[in-house]
Amino acid sequence: MSQIHQEVLISAQRNLRVESRTISSEEVTPDCPHAWSITKQTLHGGKQEGVDVIVVDNGTLSFTVVPTRGMGILEVVKGDLRLGWESPIKEVVHPRFINLHTRGGIGWLEGFNEWICRCGLESAGAPGDDVFINNNGNEATMQLTLHGKIANTPASEVEVLIERAAPWRIRIRGRVDERCFFGPSLELWAEISTEPGSSAVRINDQVTNRGGSDQEFQLIYHTNFGRPLLEGGARLVAPTERVHPINETALAAIDTYPDYLEPTPGFIEQVYCMWPYADDQGVTSIMLRNAAEDRAVTMTYPIEHLPYLTVWKNTASVETGYATGLEPGVTFPRHRSRERADGRLPVLTPGASHRVCMDIAIEEGVDAVTRAAARIEEIQAGRQTNVDRQPLGVI
Amino acid sequence: MSQIHQEVLISAQRNLRVESRTISSEEVTPDCPHAWSITKQTLHGGKQEGVDVIVVDNGTLSFTVVPTRGMGILEVVKGDLRLGWESPIKEVVHPRFINLHTRGGIGWLEGFNEWICRCGLESAGAPGDDVFINNNGNEATMQLTLHGKIANTPASEVEVLIERAAPWRIRIRGRVDERCFFGPSLELWAEISTEPGSSAVRINDQVTNRGGSDQEFQLIYHTNFGRPLLEGGARLVAPTERVHPINETALAAIDTYPDYLEPTPGFIEQVYCMWPYADDQGVTSIMLRNAAEDRAVTMTYPIEHLPYLTVWKNTASVETGYATGLEPGVTFPRHRSRERADGRLPVLTPGASHRVCMDIAIEEGVDAVTRAAARIEEIQAGRQTNVDRQPLGVI
Amino acid sequence: MSQIHQEVLISAQRNLRVESRTISSEEVTPDCPHAWSITKQTLHGGKQEGVDVIVVDNGTLSFTVVPTRGMGILEVVKGDLRLGWESPIKEVVHPRFINLHTRGGIGWLEGFNEWICRCGLESAGAPGDDVFINNNGNEATMQLTLHGKIANTPASEVEVLIERAAPWRIRIRGRVDERCFFGPSLELWAEISTEPGSSAVRINDQVTNRGGSDQEFQLIYHTNFGRPLLEGGARLVAPTERVHPINETALAAIDTYPDYLEPTPGFIEQVYCMWPYADDQGVTSIMLRNAAEDRAVTMTYPIEHLPYLTVWKNTASVETGYATGLEPGVTFPRHRSRERADGRLPVLTPGASHRVCMDIAIEEGVDAVTRAAARIEEIQAGRQTNVDRQPLGVI
Repeated sequence: MSQIHQEVLISAQRNLRVESRTISSEEVTPDCPHAWSITKQTLHGGKQEGVDVIVVDNGTLSFTVVPTRGMGILEVVKGDLRLGWESPIKEVVHPRFINLHTRGGIGWLEGFNEWICRCGLESAGAPGDDVFINNNGNEATMQLTLHGKIANTPASEVEVLIERAAPWRIRIRGRVDERCFFGPSLELWAEISTEPGSSAVRINDQVTNRGGSDQEFQLIYHTNFGRPLLEGGARLVAPTERVHPINETALAAIDTYPDYLEPTPGFIEQVYCMWPYADDQGVTSIMLRNAAEDRAVTMTYPIEHLPYLTVWKNTASVETGYATGLEPGVTFPRHRSRERADGRLPVLTPGASHRVCMDIAIEEGVDAVTRAAARIEEIQAGRQTNVDRQPLGVI
Repeated sequence: MSQIHQEVLISAQRNLRVESRTISSEEVTPDCPHAWSITKQTLHGGKQEGVDVIVVDNGTLSFTVVPTRGMGILEVVKGDLRLGWESPIKEVVHPRFINLHTRGGIGWLEGFNEWICRCGLESAGAPGDDVFINNNGNEATMQLTLHGKIANTPASEVEVLIERAAPWRIRIRGRVDERCFFGPSLELWAEISTEPGSSAVRINDQVTNRGGSDQEFQLIYHTNFGRPLLEGGARLVAPTERVHPINETALAAIDTYPDYLEPTPGFIEQVYCMWPYADDQGVTSIMLRNAAEDRAVTMTYPIEHLPYLTVWKNTASVETGYATGLEPGVTFPRHRSRERADGRLPVLTPGASHRVCMDIAIEEGVDAVTRAAARIEEIQAGRQTNVDRQPLGVI
Repeated sequence: MSQIHQEVLISAQRNLRVESRTISSEEVTPDCPHAWSITKQTLHGGKQEGVDVIVVDNGTLSFTVVPTRGMGILEVVKGDLRLGWESPIKEVVHPRFINLHTRGGIGWLEGFNEWICRCGLESAGAPGDDVFINNNGNEATMQLTLHGKIANTPASEVEVLIERAAPWRIRIRGRVDERCFFGPSLELWAEISTEPGSSAVRINDQVTNRGGSDQEFQLIYHTNFGRPLLEGGARLVAPTERVHPINETALAAIDTYPDYLEPTPGFIEQVYCMWPYADDQGVTSIMLRNAAEDRAVTMTYPIEHLPYLTVWKNTASVETGYATGLEPGVTFPRHRSRERADGRLPVLTPGASHRVCMDIAIEEGVDAVTRAAARIEEIQAGRQTNVDRQPLGVI
C-alpha cells in the first residue's frame, strides 16, 4: 500500500468531477488519533449554483477550499475563532456571474469574500490600460482588471493527498491555468495542507510558465481578516525595513499604521507598502493580534518567495466590510506598468517556476501570542524601520 | 397546521435548488374550488441550459416566473390571450451567456423577451458613463449598461407561499441581490401572486439598502405587450397630467401618442415620458385595450410607488419585435446622470426600503373594458393633460 | 421504417439535452459493412464543465463536434494522422468562461483550439469599433470582437441523421442562433457528415437572416493544421488568381508564401489574402501536403460559396501554437468596416440564406497526393497568379 492516499476530485484531463464525497480518518488513517474528514460538496442556489467546495476538518480546525474560484480559501474555523471576514458578498459566486471588466475594471469585487484570495497571474493590482505584444508582434493596449483573472478561474485538476503515517498531513492540491493563444501560458499549482490536530495550515504553491517565451507575472496573497481578530486595539506586528503609504489618505494616518480602529462608518481604506525583514535563514513572520493580546494569527514564509507586503486597512462599518488584508506578494498591488517601471515585476523564462511556501498558524493565549511577538522582534533584531512619507502611487 | 403552506424551491443559504416539483391544489388546498398547480422546471438546450422556471396555473390563467433571470415574468396566458410579446429572442437566455457591456453597453437586449422585466437596481435606463465613488473615496467613471443588472441576476432565495383558506392566494417570492464590495448592497424581494380562479396577478416587491451608506437606485417595470392585445387601433388609456416626447422621433408622432399602428416594417421606436394622475387615495390605473375595445389589460398601483410612466411604442414588423412597453418606474429610463440632474433619482438610507404594489388584470368583454375606461376617466376627473413638445433627451 | 434514422440530442424547443448516448451501426444499419458509432458525452472539470461533445467514428476516421462551442469541430483522427493542432488552450472551454471583450477585444483566443472554428456571423475578423444602427434609428458605435460570437454560442438544436441504406451517410446537424433585439437575427444550421468507411467529411451549412431588415454577415472557416501534416517542407497547393500580403511581415516573406517552416521560436504570424481560381463548374480545391508529399488534406468547394481564402501561417514554437489556418470565407478576416469599404461584405435580405458546402478529404500515399495536386493544377489551367506586393491592411 502506498504511503500516500491519493484521490482525484476534479480532472478536465480525465473528464471527471466528483459531485460529493466524504473521506474520513477512519477510512484512510485508522491509527491517526485525530478524527479528520474531507468533504467535497457542490453548492446550489443563486450565484453559487455549481460551485465546488472542499471542507477539510483536521480535528482541531476546519477550512474551506473553493476550486471553482481558483483554489481560494473561504475561511478557517477553530471553535469560535474564524479567520476570514464578513464581506457584503454573501454567496460563493460562480465566476460565470462575474464580468471582471464591469465597473471600470473592478468587477472582481462582485465576488470578493475569501479569507485568502490569490491575485494574478498575468497581472494583479489596480485596473487600467497596459501594453502587450499582439499577434502581429506589435504593441497593443489592453485593460487590466483589478487583481487579474486567477481567482475567477476554475481549477482544472484537483486532488487530495493524505499521508498514511504520522504526521498524516492532508493536502488539497489544484491546478489553475491562465492560458491564452498569443498570450500567457501560466500554470498555478495551489496547495493547502494541514496536519490533523494542529492549529496551522500551510500554503505550498508553484507558478510555472508553460509558454514558449518569457512571461511577466504577478501573485499576491490577499489574506483578509475581520472580526473577532480584527477589532479596535488590534495590531499588526511585523519586522519592517521600510513602509510607504500608497496615497495621501494612507500618509495622513501613517503614524498609527500598525494599529486598528473599531468599525468606523465612512472610513476610507488605507494601504501601506512594506518591505519586511527576514532572519538569517531568509524567513520572515508577521502577525495580526487582537486587543487583549491573547489571540493572533501568524504568517511565516521565506522572504525570497514573497518580498513585498501590502497592508490594506479597511476598518469601515461591518455592513460595508470591516477587514484588513495582509498581502504578501511578488509585487505590490499597484498597476502592472508601475511595478514594471519600478523594477519589481518578475519574469519567468519558458519552463521556469516560482514557488511560494507559507505557514499560517493560530496563536491562542497570552503566552503563545507573546512568544510569536518575541520571534518577530528577533527577526527585526533591533534594525531600523524606515517610514517613508512619500506616497508610492497606485497607477 | 399553519395557515400558510410554505415551500422553498431555491436557497443559496440552505444550499438547495429543487430540480423539478409540482404542487397541486389537491395536495395543499383540497377545499379550493379552483384546480391550481405550481410547476418548477429546469430548462435545457442552447442558451437556456440550467434556467429555472416556475409556472403557476391558477385554474383560469397561468404565468411563468424565471428566478434565473431576476424573477422576471415571461408571460401570462389565459385561453387564447397571451400577455407578453414575440421577441426575436426565442430562448429564456441564461445570464451566463449575456455580456451586458457588449454592443456598446446594450448586451441586455440579447436576452430581452419577458412580459415583465424589472430594470435596475443600481441603475436602469440608457447606457453610458457615470461617476461613482471608488475604494479611495474618489470619483471614478464606470459604464452603466442598458437597464442595469437585476434582470440578469439569478434569485438567491425562492419560495412558494399558499394560503390554506379562501381566497387561497398563491405567492411566488424571490430575493435577488445586487451586491458589490465598495459598491451597492441592494436587495430585491420580488413577489408575484394570484388568487385561484381570478384573471389578475399582483406584484408586491420591496427594494432594501443593506449597505452602510446612502444608495441611489432605479427600478422600472418594463411591461411588454405584443399581439393579440397590441394591434392597429389598439390604444393606451391613462389618466395623464403631462406627457413629454423623449426625442425628435417621438415628438413627430406626439399627436397620436395613445394610438397604435399595425406591424409596420421600418418603424422607429417612439418613447413618451408621462406623469399619471392618481385618485384621492393616491391610486392610478392605466390600460392597454385592443381595437375592438373588448379586451384589455389594466395596471393599477399607488402613484407614490411608481411616479413616472414610460410608454415605449415599437410597432415594427413582427420579425423585428412588434411590442409596446408600459413601464411604470421610480424614474424614467433615461441615463442615470440625467435623472439625477433632474432630481428624480431616489436614495435609500441604510436599512431603508422602497415598496411597489401593482395589480394587473385582464379585462374581457366590452362591458369590462368600458368599466375600466370609466374608472380611468374618474381618476382623470376632468383635469388637463399637458402635452410638452420639448424632447426630454435620453443621455 | 423511414429511410433516415433521426435522433434529437439537444433541443431548446423541446426542453431536451441528452447527457450521454451511444448510437451504433449494429443498432441502426445492421447491413453496413463499416462499424460506425456516434457518442454524445458531457465534459467535466475546469473550464470544460458542462460542454457537450459528439464523437463520430465512421470506422475509418473519427471526428469530434462541439455543440456548446457553435458546432465547432475539435479534430479528425485517422490512425496516427490528426487534423487539428496543439493549441496552448488544452480544455474545450465553455463559452461561459470566455469574455470576448477582454484583452482589447481578442478574448476569443482564450478558447481557440479547434480544427474548424467558424468565425461570424454578425462580424468576423479583426476587433475594433464599427458603426451600427441603434434603437433610435441613429448611428452608434460598438466594439466588434475578434472573429465574432458564433464559436462561443451554444447550439440550440442538435440532431443526428443516419441513412439506413448505402452510402449510410451520417449527419450531425445543429442550429446556432445569433440574435439580438434591435440587432441581427442570424441563424446558422451547421452540418458535418461522413460516409462510413470513407476518409472524408463534408460541411453543409446554411446561414439565414430571420430578421425583418437587410443584414450584413461574415462567415470564415478557420481550419487549422499542426503536426504531423504541418512541418518544415510542408506546402500549400492552391489554384491562385491573386495573393496579397496583409501587412509588412507577410510582405517580407511573400516569395515563399506556400512553403512552411519547422517550429520556429519567435516566428511572427504571416497572413495572405488569396483569390482562388475555380474550374468551369465553379469548383475550387486547395491542399496542404507534408514534406514527403505522401500525406495531405484537400478542401474542395464551390468558389461562389466562399470566394476568399486566407492563409494564416504561424509556424512558431510548439508551446506557442505551431499551426497554419486555411480559411475560406465570404470575406477576409479584416475588420468589418474594411471589408465593407472594399465591397466584399455580403448582405442577406429578410428570409434569404447563404449556403456553404465543402468536402474535406485525407489523401494518403504518394499517388493520392500526386493526383490531388494534378487536380489543382487542372483548375489553375495554366492561368497566371498575380502576387500583389501592397499590404491589404487589417483595420
